[in-house]
Amino acid sequence: MPALTMNAHEAYGELIRIAREQSVLSSCADLLEWDEETYMPRGGVAHRAEQSAVLAGMLHERQTSARMGELLATLEASDLARGGDAPAAVNIRELGRLYRRRARLPREHVEEFARARTMAQQVWVEAREEMDFGRFAPWLETMVGLARREAGMLSAGGDPYDSLVEHYEPGMTTARLTALFGSLRAELGPLLGSIVGTRKRPRTAMLRREYPVDRQKLFAQAVAAAVGFDLERGRLDVAAHPFCMAIGPGDTRLTMRYAERSFGDGFFAMLHEVGHGLYEQGLPAEHYGTPMGMAASLGMHESQSRLWENLVGRSLPFWTHFYPRLRNVFHEALADVKVEAFFLAINRVEPTALRATADEVTYNVHIMIRFELERAMLSGALAPADLPGAWNEAYRRELGVEPRDVVEGCLQDGHWAEGLFGYFPTYTLGNVYAAQVYAASGNRDEAFARGDFSGLLGWLRDHVHTQGMKHPAPELVRRVSGREPDPGALVAGLRKKYGELYGL
Amino acid sequence: MPALTMNAHEAYGELIRIAREQSVLSSCADLLEWDEETYMPRGGVAHRAEQSAVLAGMLHERQTSARMGELLATLEASDLARGGDAPAAVNIRELGRLYRRRARLPREHVEEFARARTMAQQVWVEAREEMDFGRFAPWLETMVGLARREAGMLSAGGDPYDSLVEHYEPGMTTARLTALFGSLRAELGPLLGSIVGTRKRPRTAMLRREYPVDRQKLFAQAVAAAVGFDLERGRLDVAAHPFCMAIGPGDTRLTMRYAERSFGDGFFAMLHEVGHGLYEQGLPAEHYGTPMGMAASLGMHESQSRLWENLVGRSLPFWTHFYPRLRNVFHEALADVKVEAFFLAINRVEPTALRATADEVTYNVHIMIRFELERAMLSGALAPADLPGAWNEAYRRELGVEPRDVVEGCLQDGHWAEGLFGYFPTYTLGNVYAAQVYAASGNRDEAFARGDFSGLLGWLRDHVHTQGMKHPAPELVRRVSGREPDPGALVAGLRKKYGELYGL
Repeated sequence: MPALTMNAHEAYGELIRIAREQSVLSSCADLLEWDEETYMPRGGVAHRAEQSAVLAGMLHERQTSARMGELLATLEASDLARGGDAPAAVNIRELGRLYRRRARLPREHVEEFARARTMAQQVWVEAREEMDFGRFAPWLETMVGLARREAGMLSAGGDPYDSLVEHYEPGMTTARLTALFGSLRAELGPLLGSIVGTRKRPRTAMLRREYPVDRQKLFAQAVAAAVGFDLERGRLDVAAHPFCMAIGPGDTRLTMRYAERSFGDGFFAMLHEVGHGLYEQGLPAEHYGTPMGMAASLGMHESQSRLWENLVGRSLPFWTHFYPRLRNVFHEALADVKVEAFFLAINRVEPTALRATADEVTYNVHIMIRFELERAMLSGALAPADLPGAWNEAYRRELGVEPRDVVEGCLQDGHWAEGLFGYFPTYTLGNVYAAQVYAASGNRDEAFARGDFSGLLGWLRDHVHTQGMKHPAPELVRRVSGREPDPGALVAGLRKKYGELYGL
Repeated sequence: MPALTMNAHEAYGELIRIAREQSVLSSCADLLEWDEETYMPRGGVAHRAEQSAVLAGMLHERQTSARMGELLATLEASDLARGGDAPAAVNIRELGRLYRRRARLPREHVEEFARARTMAQQVWVEAREEMDFGRFAPWLETMVGLARREAGMLSAGGDPYDSLVEHYEPGMTTARLTALFGSLRAELGPLLGSIVGTRKRPRTAMLRREYPVDRQKLFAQAVAAAVGFDLERGRLDVAAHPFCMAIGPGDTRLTMRYAERSFGDGFFAMLHEVGHGLYEQGLPAEHYGTPMGMAASLGMHESQSRLWENLVGRSLPFWTHFYPRLRNVFHEALADVKVEAFFLAINRVEPTALRATADEVTYNVHIMIRFELERAMLSGALAPADLPGAWNEAYRRELGVEPRDVVEGCLQDGHWAEGLFGYFPTYTLGNVYAAQVYAASGNRDEAFARGDFSGLLGWLRDHVHTQGMKHPAPELVRRVSGREPDPGALVAGLRKKYGELYGL
């Protein structure tokens, strides 16, 4: 059927049908990835790379088909596209954006990328085990090379890094991020300085007592369920790295890691992933497979995980409810610890070498370091082989700490092995969005202290989760909070909380 | 390129490339299935049905593409096809056979089948939990209907059941199976009669003492590794039903189930799956994705599992090595049990209602019952809704037992829920092939008693595993054993073993 004579409603029906089919196919690739991180035997990695490449290639072929282009051309010229934030208008807008982006990438590139990332991730794991950056270096170079190539293909002039960021955070630019990081740095630097200046060092030894892993798992399941994660429509597994993978409606999977002699790291990583999982479980299932049924952006996704991890999970009302339960489960470890001391311990501010377990005040510094380093690698200013030196130098300069080894240094995160360049900034955007959204949701401390999180979850469902991609993330934040995204709420929240905790 | 001017070697290269890609895609569907049986949350089933349908449809489209047809037409007319059992000739022969079979099925049917089987399996699980056949009945009817439709599409005249059997066991026919079952029945009936007539009832209570599941898992892993299963290139998991799923070279997965108060059932099911897994791990990886790298047939596959489960695993030399180790692991349960008593217990012959745990003498009777019933359902002579009555009647008549409930009755196997009609006979073919192959492999009792299974595995690798589909299964059996497949070796083996055990 020639494009111009197509009936717009028929065209829309066909577009949605093929978009859904593509999402289903993409979710098969997601399951491969989940399995790779959880249960795949080592010997399966080469075949997994082939599987990922085949699916990526087939998916790309469909996502960039001439038929998609025809349907979108018809629809973008039709009244359906001028429906404001009606579902059809949203889906046409976002599918068109994605189509044009994907059409710039040849299938061979997409397959090569999928194959390389599977191998690079495996080598990254092995390099960590052997504490040998040299082993990973050639694969880092490969992934940087592929990301540069992709940025080049996608870029329509301007900073090629923009085109990578835009993939994760539509509408965000390098310039805007640089400005945002600049003002954050100007605010957080003095705050961190005055906290360190108090020379207060809350005791945290009780967090490193004996916490049997089996009981940590049970406690994690119980808390996940208590805050609203539906375990009939998802699951928790153990993996080397915590992540959330949404396979489909009714199937949202979280992974955790637990250490016998550490409570906090595993627990807050769990709560972080639960936050992601709640967003996925709250997306409108009737729009599954189309933008209206997808998260607004990675930054918005991260806002949900950080909100539950920090704004809820590191608050006193949360522990007013959960601490007696925690002490029941780990009575040997916590019998002599009062809730106030525990609360202080989980909020201790201290510059360290590790991002994932960093406190709320230093966390964004870790992101800024990665933002600088990945741009340097992509521009060619930093050779991937020289990363360890540059990394350690940045940590000394920005946080005054020295990683003990490469596992605590530049091999700590797997993002670059996965080919995720331009992704790290979404973590800080998540913190910024979370603070604005949370402030707008109202105070529910009393309900939290009773163990009731349904009010907050219901509010988030209404204002964020069920919105899908109706609005670009910055616009969604503005609608929810009344302000453009800016670090004001984040900084104000941190000043208030840590001012009280450290008596500033 | 028009078919007739294509260079045969180029065409062969292209055929192999696309056959491999199809196998990789098919292996993605296999992972979905494995996951469905092991870790998928209940809420994921509807989406999993969509995923399976999309992959099945895409796979079918590729498997029946016009290009495949052109390449095969060129190749079948070329000298490459006349290369006897050279890899190219074998691959052309088998890919041509599969192509013609698949081309008879429309894509819509294949997708509908994939979707329905995912749902039917889930309902079968629920019907078992609720001991409610009525719940499963409509889905059984659906699956019977789909299988009848498929048989009709595939059949070129003659018994439509032939076309289903042929899928699992190329070259096998209903008539040949009927004859084989007839002669087996004539031999096994009297043997069973005389065993039951001795009124000897070996004590088996020690198999139902306390066997902590964690230790069963460790013992299973140790035995699997000891007989040669490579755990770096595969894994063992727990699932409701034991199965073997080969995801790809280097990734062969087995599932087990364990019960605290039962040793034998879990152990022998494990050894059975290990037998399947050894075959998969022994296929020539350089031919992955093509018939030369695939198992000869399901019957041949089953021969490997039954060989390790029964001919090796229920032999005295096997337990001469493993029994002291078993007693170390389960000292409370077995401290007062001698190896001879244990050996008798695991070989007790007794008609029961359950196939999977049946002894070697009655096992094939369970298969004959299913062979009759599924043919009756497919021909329309038996309405699926009437299955429970017909099932119980057959068990009374053939084995003199009465299932206590539908879980012990017609809901015991999930094959029909999966749409596997014509599959059951391959179990008996497996027993027949196993006996012939094992007799040909020579006596290695002494090595087994020392815990050395490498001689047998090496022999199987050479004579069976690395052969792929070079020969149709019956021909492979003939080459290995010097005889056409017939129940002679099976019956002789059973007579000898049970004659000694029961003093006949």
